[in-house]
Amino acid sequence: MLTSATFMLTLLGLVAGALTSFSFGFQVWQSWRTKSVKDVSAAMYLVFSTGVVLWLAYGLLRRDVALIVWNAITLVLVALILTLKFRYGQSSAK
Amino acid sequence: MLTSATFMLTLLGLVAGALTSFSFGFQVWQSWRTKSVKDVSAAMYLVFSTGVVLWLAYGLLRRDVALIVWNAITLVLVALILTLKFRYGQSSAK
Repeated sequence: MLTSATFMLTLLGLVAGALTSFSFGFQVWQSWRTKSVKDVSAAMYLVFSTGVVLWLAYGLLRRDVALIVWNAITLVLVALILTLKFRYGQSSAK
Repeated sequence: MLTSATFMLTLLGLVAGALTSFSFGFQVWQSWRTKSVKDVSAAMYLVFSTGVVLWLAYGLLRRDVALIVWNAITLVLVALILTLKFRYGQSSAK
C-alpha cells in the first residue's frame, strides 16, 4: 500500500510538473509565430525566472526529483520567452 | 546545525515561492492597466492553472507548506489573468 501511495504521489508530481512546465511552450509558440509580445510582461518573466532558479536549488537540496526536472524544463522555456520578448519588444512595444 | 539547515531550506522555499507566485502580479497589473491581452497565450494559462491545482494537491499530500501556500496564491493571480484575457480578448484579439 505504501509503495502504491508513493507511486501515485510521484505520478501526481510528474503530471503537475508536466502541465505547469510545458504550458510555457504555448506562450513560446504564440510569441514566435506572431512576433508580437507587447502584452507579455517582461517584469513577470524576469522575476519568475529568478524564482525558478531558486526552486531548482530547493528541489536539489530536498532531493525532490519532480521539482528538479520540471523547474529545469520551465527555466529553458521561460528563457525562450524572455529572448523573444527582448527581440520583438522594440518593434512592437508602445 | 540540522535545525539551522532546515530553517535555511524553509527560507529558500519561501523566497522561491514568493518570486514565482507574485511574479504573476506584474502580468495582472499590466493587463489590467493596458486592457490589451492579445499577445498573452490563453492556452498557456489554461494548462498552467490546471497544473497549479495538481501541484496544490501534491503539496497537501506531501504536507509541504511552501508548495501549498505559494500554489494557492499563484492560482488566484493566474485566475485573474485568465479573467482579464477573456474580458479584453474579444476587443483586442486578431
